[in-house]
Amino acid sequence: MPAQAMNSDSASRLASDVRSGDRAALARAITLIESRRADHQAQARELVQALLPLTGKAVRVGITGSPGVGKSTTVDALGMALIAKGHKVAVLAVDPSSARTGGSILGDKTRMALLSAEDNAFIRPSPSSGTLGGVAAKTREAMLLCEAAGFDVVLVETVGIGQSETAVCDMTDFFLALMLPGAGDELQGIKKGLVELADMIAVNKADGDNLKRAKAAAAEYNAALHILAPRSEHWFPPVLTYSALTGDGINALWEKILAHRTAMIASGDFETRRRHQQVKWMWTILEDRLHARLRSDPAIRAKVKQTEAAVANGRMTPAVAAETISALLD
Amino acid sequence: MPAQAMNSDSASRLASDVRSGDRAALARAITLIESRRADHQAQARELVQALLPLTGKAVRVGITGSPGVGKSTTVDALGMALIAKGHKVAVLAVDPSSARTGGSILGDKTRMALLSAEDNAFIRPSPSSGTLGGVAAKTREAMLLCEAAGFDVVLVETVGIGQSETAVCDMTDFFLALMLPGAGDELQGIKKGLVELADMIAVNKADGDNLKRAKAAAAEYNAALHILAPRSEHWFPPVLTYSALTGDGINALWEKILAHRTAMIASGDFETRRRHQQVKWMWTILEDRLHARLRSDPAIRAKVKQTEAAVANGRMTPAVAAETISALLD
Repeated sequence: MPAQAMNSDSASRLASDVRSGDRAALARAITLIESRRADHQAQARELVQALLPLTGKAVRVGITGSPGVGKSTTVDALGMALIAKGHKVAVLAVDPSSARTGGSILGDKTRMALLSAEDNAFIRPSPSSGTLGGVAAKTREAMLLCEAAGFDVVLVETVGIGQSETAVCDMTDFFLALMLPGAGDELQGIKKGLVELADMIAVNKADGDNLKRAKAAAAEYNAALHILAPRSEHWFPPVLTYSALTGDGINALWEKILAHRTAMIASGDFETRRRHQQVKWMWTILEDRLHARLRSDPAIRAKVKQTEAAVANGRMTPAVAAETISALLD
Repeated sequence: MPAQAMNSDSASRLASDVRSGDRAALARAITLIESRRADHQAQARELVQALLPLTGKAVRVGITGSPGVGKSTTVDALGMALIAKGHKVAVLAVDPSSARTGGSILGDKTRMALLSAEDNAFIRPSPSSGTLGGVAAKTREAMLLCEAAGFDVVLVETVGIGQSETAVCDMTDFFLALMLPGAGDELQGIKKGLVELADMIAVNKADGDNLKRAKAAAAEYNAALHILAPRSEHWFPPVLTYSALTGDGINALWEKILAHRTAMIASGDFETRRRHQQVKWMWTILEDRLHARLRSDPAIRAKVKQTEAAVANGRMTPAVAAETISALLD
């Protein structure tokens, strides 16, 4: 469908097919969103706007963890547990590196062997549009489409590269950081930026010989978190252990996510966070547009590069440079 | 001077007076920078551009801490120690709350009793221009003027309100977080955002009866920092104790700041950080201009408010809203 222009008839049919829970239509709608063609982008905006009243009801969970932590097996186990409870689970990803490497954290669906065979699951790899801003924007809109299609839990995976964790935190209600027990006595360091974002830390591979090490790691992370002032007075990030392999502790993860949701809704923080996310997203799109405008014309792009270099080298003040670039836009 | 238009003769005289180290001229130049009049702003841009070759040589240190931690007495003690070593010390501040409250962390110069009487010190309260962006922009330019006037150490104070710490971190080479031993056994929580920014944590009031508690607090902060992965492979943020009252440990703070500088210069991180700061600053000014443009016309401002509300309430998608606002600018 995105390969050719869509008339408004087929656009409204696509909207109603998504609404009815048609997974093939959902996949096509996301492909439309990911298209770079201007006409497709206009159609995608209309499609999302039309489906907007059906969105916002899902539990949105961001999940991060370094490679090797067992993110895919965790999502597989958590997703299956949720489907057993009657949920419909969508799995999305923000992986800005997939454009460079050609790979994607969710590229190989077989890494979620159980979930990918389920009718009540929808798995979509990260869009590969190049910049983090572009990838995050498309994943946010894909999330809305999944919600309109009836998925009531959305899990958004990310690898901990650069600002991708912040981007995923900005589109979800709960942000879960997965850690490993660490080899021997050596504790895996928590990335500083992550401490700011995580609503829970969960130590995977708490099974067999690793159980004791996992508990010890959790205790240390917990002690470290207690020296930091909590971000919200209504939630102190817990540290749990679990095993994606045996399934031990998977249900406890979900119970904490729901407990957080209850506390946030009761305090009003839930509504506030969602509203802030929406407005922030709007301004991000506006800023991306400004940058895109500065990149699109080769002459302007060259002048911007040259001005940036003069600022970096200390030959021009940022204020004079901003004036110069601003003049290019008028 | 900023109350009336300045011709280019007086502008170049002001530049040469600043360059000669005339403190009254420096104060007038900063007042010019802080003026909101469009003609003054244009003159200020020229002035800073003219003095730019003389800037960038100072050691730029950001200092944060909650009220009551003893920021002013610390700056007083550190500043006097630096003057004794032959340095010229400028003290600036970023305090976005001063516009609202009419007060300022540096409003009362008598809080730096020793330093304010020194010829080799220059103390300037926070500009009170309303928004954090505006305050930070003016402080950054004031810093450049101080450097052009021969001050080789610039200390920038901030209170830990909202994003003001990030703003100060973005304009300095080293970011120092001051803490208290805490009352009794209770440890003062480190704000999460601060862990990300701090190049050093220093526990004040390590004197008399508090000494033992201060050392214990430092040990706990140190343990917590060790569970976090370091931001730079060339610097692990140390935790020190000191007393602004007795002066114990003040010289050690400065030695760590210099050790950091040496390590950063050797690794190339110093140059990289400065360049990034400059370029980021330029883009911040550009974004501020965009926002200012959206605020300046009452009709546009009303439409933006209305669009923001529709996005916050979930009636309009951020993409459609961004399109709407973007159209207002064309």
